[in-house]
Amino acid sequence: MSFMIDEIVQQPDALERTLRKELPRVEAFRRRLSHLSIDFVSLAARGTSDNAALFGRYLIEISTGLPATLAAPSVTTLYGVRHRWKNTLVIALSQSGESTDTNLYVQAAREAGALTVGITNESTSSLTRMVDEVFFVHAGREKSVAATKTYTGQLLVLYLLAYALGAPIPPKSLERLPELARRALRTRKQVAALSERYRSMNQAVVVGRGLNYANAFELSLKMMETCYVVAERFSGADFLHGPIALVERAFPVFVFSPPGPTSGTTLDILRRLRDLEAETIVIGEATDAAMRSISVPVTGRVPAGCPRDLLTPIPYIIPAQLFCAFLAEQKGLDPDHPRTLTKVTRTI
Amino acid sequence: MSFMIDEIVQQPDALERTLRKELPRVEAFRRRLSHLSIDFVSLAARGTSDNAALFGRYLIEISTGLPATLAAPSVTTLYGVRHRWKNTLVIALSQSGESTDTNLYVQAAREAGALTVGITNESTSSLTRMVDEVFFVHAGREKSVAATKTYTGQLLVLYLLAYALGAPIPPKSLERLPELARRALRTRKQVAALSERYRSMNQAVVVGRGLNYANAFELSLKMMETCYVVAERFSGADFLHGPIALVERAFPVFVFSPPGPTSGTTLDILRRLRDLEAETIVIGEATDAAMRSISVPVTGRVPAGCPRDLLTPIPYIIPAQLFCAFLAEQKGLDPDHPRTLTKVTRTI
Repeated sequence: MSFMIDEIVQQPDALERTLRKELPRVEAFRRRLSHLSIDFVSLAARGTSDNAALFGRYLIEISTGLPATLAAPSVTTLYGVRHRWKNTLVIALSQSGESTDTNLYVQAAREAGALTVGITNESTSSLTRMVDEVFFVHAGREKSVAATKTYTGQLLVLYLLAYALGAPIPPKSLERLPELARRALRTRKQVAALSERYRSMNQAVVVGRGLNYANAFELSLKMMETCYVVAERFSGADFLHGPIALVERAFPVFVFSPPGPTSGTTLDILRRLRDLEAETIVIGEATDAAMRSISVPVTGRVPAGCPRDLLTPIPYIIPAQLFCAFLAEQKGLDPDHPRTLTKVTRTI
Repeated sequence: MSFMIDEIVQQPDALERTLRKELPRVEAFRRRLSHLSIDFVSLAARGTSDNAALFGRYLIEISTGLPATLAAPSVTTLYGVRHRWKNTLVIALSQSGESTDTNLYVQAAREAGALTVGITNESTSSLTRMVDEVFFVHAGREKSVAATKTYTGQLLVLYLLAYALGAPIPPKSLERLPELARRALRTRKQVAALSERYRSMNQAVVVGRGLNYANAFELSLKMMETCYVVAERFSGADFLHGPIALVERAFPVFVFSPPGPTSGTTLDILRRLRDLEAETIVIGEATDAAMRSISVPVTGRVPAGCPRDLLTPIPYIIPAQLFCAFLAEQKGLDPDHPRTLTKVTRTI
């Protein structure tokens, strides 16, 4: 069995640990923020951490109304631009805390007056030392090159940061996440069986929207890294503006399908895909229009003022991670050691 | 011959016309902006226009230091969030001016106090009526579903808007763009011959960085729409953080390779690709590490304080557009009418 599978299974415990250990520090940061004026948030990261940042961008905009962006690090690292940051919070995410360009970006932002926060798995990393505040993902060492438990840990810390920024997400409501993750792991046998069907798949499309848009990027990246599947990722809307032309009969399309604000447009896409006779695999809530589905139950209330899909991203990515780990096995590949990659990538 | 080829060839004239007609209005807008405080720019669009917006994001950050982002329209259209815009300029781009979600986003932003600008090809469109200021792409009617001349027209207007925001890009320096586009069209025969080689290509990766990052998205989108090639697009840095694992011997990788700030990291990638024996096709400046290249001359000085790749994006996308038009022909496809698509896509 791969480290990747081991680490996927560790996620409920890692989430519990991270919530318990970071909450007091987040409460203190929330008090600090209440004295500051923040008008804008920029999130900097690479790879899987960048997918977590994409979730953070949507979560922060949706739950606080603050405009947020994903950093374009090359503007700083290659073009040498000093941004005119005003009342800005810069959040850097890096599993190792040693991503060169993320660190250069956050350092320049701090020098230019931005408030800087780091999210990392490594308490002794360079990132830890250079930011105003740091929050840790208590996931334990991640041995597989394919990041799984650090991704969901970063998502959890981003919920906490949204709360610190004033979002109506009481930390108490996040205590359900480890249990939801545990329930998502129960899809394991079904996902293992399903993966057999895709043994010879070499291209695919992944679609997600809103809070699950980042999951589309993450499933696609995992398929590329661990299974060498050329996997495109799109928002549902962008998909209809061109790339849907790719889809012919039996083309595999994975669709995240949560309840809530995005469900109507997702259903429209599922119907289009059914008409095209695509090979559609739904993760989340099954619908009539789906050919195949991995049903992930996310029941219970969301806090007042929050959308119904608020707590879906962590439980929904888990069957997707399992799928990639099993598919790699089906293809005779080692998901822990993808060709060409190492755990820490240093780019500028 | 396809409308697409026709319209690619019209680009130098369209650029000249747009520059001549819009410059006086841009000068007036520049004077208006000089009395306002803009701290942040958000660009909203879908499809090819969204790729132009991505260029605008890099150009504005690089040339003015203002933080900029691409809008996530669903935050407004599906989640119903009212953003807390402060001193924000919102730029909406749409060829038709009838993209539902872009229009909803810009309308909400205007109601919330943002200054709003539209860039469109259609003077009588809905977008034209709802924004504070509108600038036109004088490309003439675009008959092909595959957008080409409106993309480069939007890029040109974005240079003008960066100038209006205070960038050190004198409009005089942009007068060279039509001539650079004309010279780029001279690659036509070479590109037509090259396209024959890729007749059976069904997947590819496109890499670009900085000011040419948007071109990687645009070449990839054109390949998907007109040739049904599953084409991934990455920044050079993101590519090394995972997706490079896809690349095996003879895998086609298209790389935009301009002079200037990004050239060192691009060369690193070309060397990695050579070691992997990938099928690498370089657009821009040829290097030793390239297997095949479409050389596009962009000579002459850039304005003081500007990076050397400033004027490369318009001439560099032209051989890429030609490549897709010829490749579609090679594959027996009609680039003007991709399956499943229509010219105006209405999504929310």
